[in-house]
Amino acid sequence: KLTTAAAQITKANSSSSWASLQADIEAHIKQAIPMKEPLVVFEPMHHLVFAAPRTTVPALCVASCELVGGHQDQALAAASALLVMQAAAYTHEHLPLTDRPRPKPKGHREYDPNIELLIGDGMIPYAFELLARSNDPTRDYSDRILRVMVEISRAVGSEGLVEGQYRKFLRTQLDNEANIKLEVEKGEGGMHACGAACGAVLGGGSEEEIEKMRKYGLFVGMIQGLLPGVEKAGKGLKKEIEEIRNLALEELEFFEGRNVEVISSFINI
Amino acid sequence: KLTTAAAQITKANSSSSWASLQADIEAHIKQAIPMKEPLVVFEPMHHLVFAAPRTTVPALCVASCELVGGHQDQALAAASALLVMQAAAYTHEHLPLTDRPRPKPKGHREYDPNIELLIGDGMIPYAFELLARSNDPTRDYSDRILRVMVEISRAVGSEGLVEGQYRKFLRTQLDNEANIKLEVEKGEGGMHACGAACGAVLGGGSEEEIEKMRKYGLFVGMIQGLLPGVEKAGKGLKKEIEEIRNLALEELEFFEGRNVEVISSFINI
Repeated sequence: KLTTAAAQITKANSSSSWASLQADIEAHIKQAIPMKEPLVVFEPMHHLVFAAPRTTVPALCVASCELVGGHQDQALAAASALLVMQAAAYTHEHLPLTDRPRPKPKGHREYDPNIELLIGDGMIPYAFELLARSNDPTRDYSDRILRVMVEISRAVGSEGLVEGQYRKFLRTQLDNEANIKLEVEKGEGGMHACGAACGAVLGGGSEEEIEKMRKYGLFVGMIQGLLPGVEKAGKGLKKEIEEIRNLALEELEFFEGRNVEVISSFINI
Repeated sequence: KLTTAAAQITKANSSSSWASLQADIEAHIKQAIPMKEPLVVFEPMHHLVFAAPRTTVPALCVASCELVGGHQDQALAAASALLVMQAAAYTHEHLPLTDRPRPKPKGHREYDPNIELLIGDGMIPYAFELLARSNDPTRDYSDRILRVMVEISRAVGSEGLVEGQYRKFLRTQLDNEANIKLEVEKGEGGMHACGAACGAVLGGGSEEEIEKMRKYGLFVGMIQGLLPGVEKAGKGLKKEIEEIRNLALEELEFFEGRNVEVISSFINI
């Protein structure tokens, strides 16, 4: 049976295939974000993009593109845009506002808050620019790229990541399980769903494949969002994560007969 | 001679034609930004979009589209995106960070800084979404829309508006004329240049028409950015603005024989 076999194969390879995709994406971004004037802008932008914690969203986007028969090149710009978007969100999340204490920086050098605000504001359009510029009029992909832009706008915007961040800030007031799950769903879940769906769109997947990948991505993100709390929460959450993992594998059954090795590794990271 | 004639005609009509285009754009946005759940996000977004001071950038975009033979409908989404982008920049400019005092709000209701940060972050992708969604695959405009996205990314991003804002924050330290001019060029100038160029792209203008409109927009923005300082600065600046106005009119000579009434009105607002 595919699901079990896939899970077995990929426990061993999961970190290596993810890391290899991630390396390709970072190489692409290093080339795409120039170190140029005004250095006062591009130096911190460069730094803050790579200082944000890695997530598996960009790599999932590339893996999904390859699963539906696309080539890695078709998804690299979208994967990079997703990485830059998440870095922008991380930068702003760590901004000291007068109504919240400055969160501890997790190992990234600090700039003046003013700069971090502005750089974050610059990163969001820059991510869209990366994507828009990847259009190759001779290949007639522009409709796919525009569709991916709508997907990404929604995932990072007011009904997605922004809502997730808002819920995170509210957490002290509303620290119940339902809120945490919604936060994870809007945050890690929504971003992974978006990444996987975008990869499938760019790789030329059918509507059915795109929706399967969207669901698979949601489950991958839910697992990753819930895992950090598992030790504190105990058995109930552990069981729940196992159930989500099974739901994820069910989505992959649709792709039986294709090479699901890389894509299925994401539920074991 | 066109330039003088145009200037004469339009001094009388300038405010009415600008206001009429602006009203069309705002009606479009009111329809496009829904009042829906999560209300905690969409209510302030709606409010903050309309609370930001009006600029002539969106209307110039529509006027430029019409000048090159396009229809208003082709430019309304881009004009709306530009308005939302400027509202996002305005919102973040008024955010109280720990390293700067909260600027006086200019007549808009205050939300918690946290909300204003997040809403601003949500507005930028939303603006791109408005534009991406305006794509009508049956009309094959997607390449034009992607090109406009690159234009807008650059104008609002790290080499454009963000750099202008950075220079504005530096102003106290570097309050010399050269810095103010660069700030205006990157701010009002760059945004108007972008708006006018985008309108020409969407209206199907030739490369030459697009570049003429870009220059014209830059001059329009320079005039509007410099005008507020004119009383303090005295005669020198007044003369300079008059020179910029003449340069703007020169760009319009290229369009002799077409209806330049609306577009030329922007130098007299």
